[in-house]
Amino acid sequence: MPRYELTYPKEVHNTVKRYSSRATYALKTIHEIINGAQLLHVAFQPDNSPFPAVLPMLGQMGSFERPSADTGDVLDLYLHGYVSSRLMNVSRAKTTTGDGQETPAGLPVTISASFVDGLVLALSPNAHSYNYRSAVLFGYATVVTDVPEKLYAMERITNGVVPDRWRQTRVPPNNAEMQSTSVLRVRIVSGSAKFRQGNTHDDRCDLDDESVLNNVWAGVLPVYTTLGDPIPAEYNRINPVPAYIEQFRTDFNSNAHETALLAAVEPPDIKKDTDPQDD
Amino acid sequence: MPRYELTYPKEVHNTVKRYSSRATYALKTIHEIINGAQLLHVAFQPDNSPFPAVLPMLGQMGSFERPSADTGDVLDLYLHGYVSSRLMNVSRAKTTTGDGQETPAGLPVTISASFVDGLVLALSPNAHSYNYRSAVLFGYATVVTDVPEKLYAMERITNGVVPDRWRQTRVPPNNAEMQSTSVLRVRIVSGSAKFRQGNTHDDRCDLDDESVLNNVWAGVLPVYTTLGDPIPAEYNRINPVPAYIEQFRTDFNSNAHETALLAAVEPPDIKKDTDPQDD
Repeated sequence: MPRYELTYPKEVHNTVKRYSSRATYALKTIHEIINGAQLLHVAFQPDNSPFPAVLPMLGQMGSFERPSADTGDVLDLYLHGYVSSRLMNVSRAKTTTGDGQETPAGLPVTISASFVDGLVLALSPNAHSYNYRSAVLFGYATVVTDVPEKLYAMERITNGVVPDRWRQTRVPPNNAEMQSTSVLRVRIVSGSAKFRQGNTHDDRCDLDDESVLNNVWAGVLPVYTTLGDPIPAEYNRINPVPAYIEQFRTDFNSNAHETALLAAVEPPDIKKDTDPQDD
Repeated sequence: MPRYELTYPKEVHNTVKRYSSRATYALKTIHEIINGAQLLHVAFQPDNSPFPAVLPMLGQMGSFERPSADTGDVLDLYLHGYVSSRLMNVSRAKTTTGDGQETPAGLPVTISASFVDGLVLALSPNAHSYNYRSAVLFGYATVVTDVPEKLYAMERITNGVVPDRWRQTRVPPNNAEMQSTSVLRVRIVSGSAKFRQGNTHDDRCDLDDESVLNNVWAGVLPVYTTLGDPIPAEYNRINPVPAYIEQFRTDFNSNAHETALLAAVEPPDIKKDTDPQDD
């Protein structure tokens, strides 16, 4: 565990230019947003198209070399994908044909995750905003071929969906399952996170306008994800729902709700933007 | 309104290769996923980095030339951004320096939106999955300079956050607001959407294994977004919360909950994958 907070270096691709006071480069903050996201968006530039490819994938941060590493440590990102997918093919091709010395091995990928915590409804449309948390990571993706590392990643990703789920299922995967599943390891080179919290910030001209104040509702609608009542499979035999699943639902729902409520509280220690428009 | 369902052409960048039976190219389906997403992820390839840039942005489909167009019609995507952002700068630069005849004007961008509708917890880790809806659009982005078109897009994007919100706020924007706000129009060239719905699909070997069936809970945890109780700004004077906001919250919450529950129902008319692993 690092004694001081580690941060990613600021480089051309990760430096936040708009509202930079809302940005952070702290590994812990960025990694926790990534780990908490149910889906990540993974972008890479194919050779045969002008458009970046973007795929929704599951992923978790981790260190196979040092499994006890903290979320604030230097970590890799493990992504769950499939042998046949475009990302896997491109990643594999680049890994074997790259010159290896001048650039890191692997396919350059950008991973992003975003949470909306609230709709910020201000007096003017321009001062409308969202409370949000978003993180982006940049790194080089390669296919994991080492079986113990692949199992490590699969367990981590499964437990990222529901804590402790892996050992509650039929494990280990058989040979066919191991071969049909692919895992990418992304060596991270940089990243950043960005936030918005607080209630509405309106322009002075609107705050001084009686007719505006008397006609427009201003405030925040909290936004959060909810996990509903479990729906058992037809062939499920386990009743009632196991405690580790119900505990996860309870924790997840109360944490999500609380996060959205806290996001609407004005941060006392951060100076307000002079510009009321919010990113 | 089109008499027949319009679909995007299948091209190299949008053809879904994995589980293609779950894919659709129908404009209406894709556009409704994009319009319903609170955040879009916008990816483009900068010249000075190996990594695609990915920015969370707000956007809505629309047709300025034919404002009455249906979501199933050919539409542009309007994105809300800022003059100083990297995307705006790149878009503007490409627009003016492109040769215009050989490739469409504008910056190639990929827009993606994803909803998680449920965590699908199967007997084996490999058969775990998500119920989800995801859409991707490919197109060329340019900065909107025409003032009426910009106002059209701003109103559409504001009403995409809360229906009817625009005319309930202080409008129109003043000159300073119009100049500090930028809007991108993306001319869409292709797109696709992908889904997963149903309950767990497990391997025969696990379904025939008494010890697995007697030990593993199998089923779906529905996932949906909730809008919490409104939190008024300190300077808000409107009490109670206006009906159009409360109606929106009620409709949004019941629709989101119902969508997650319906997603867990086995689709009767779609043949099951022989492979239980889910994307």
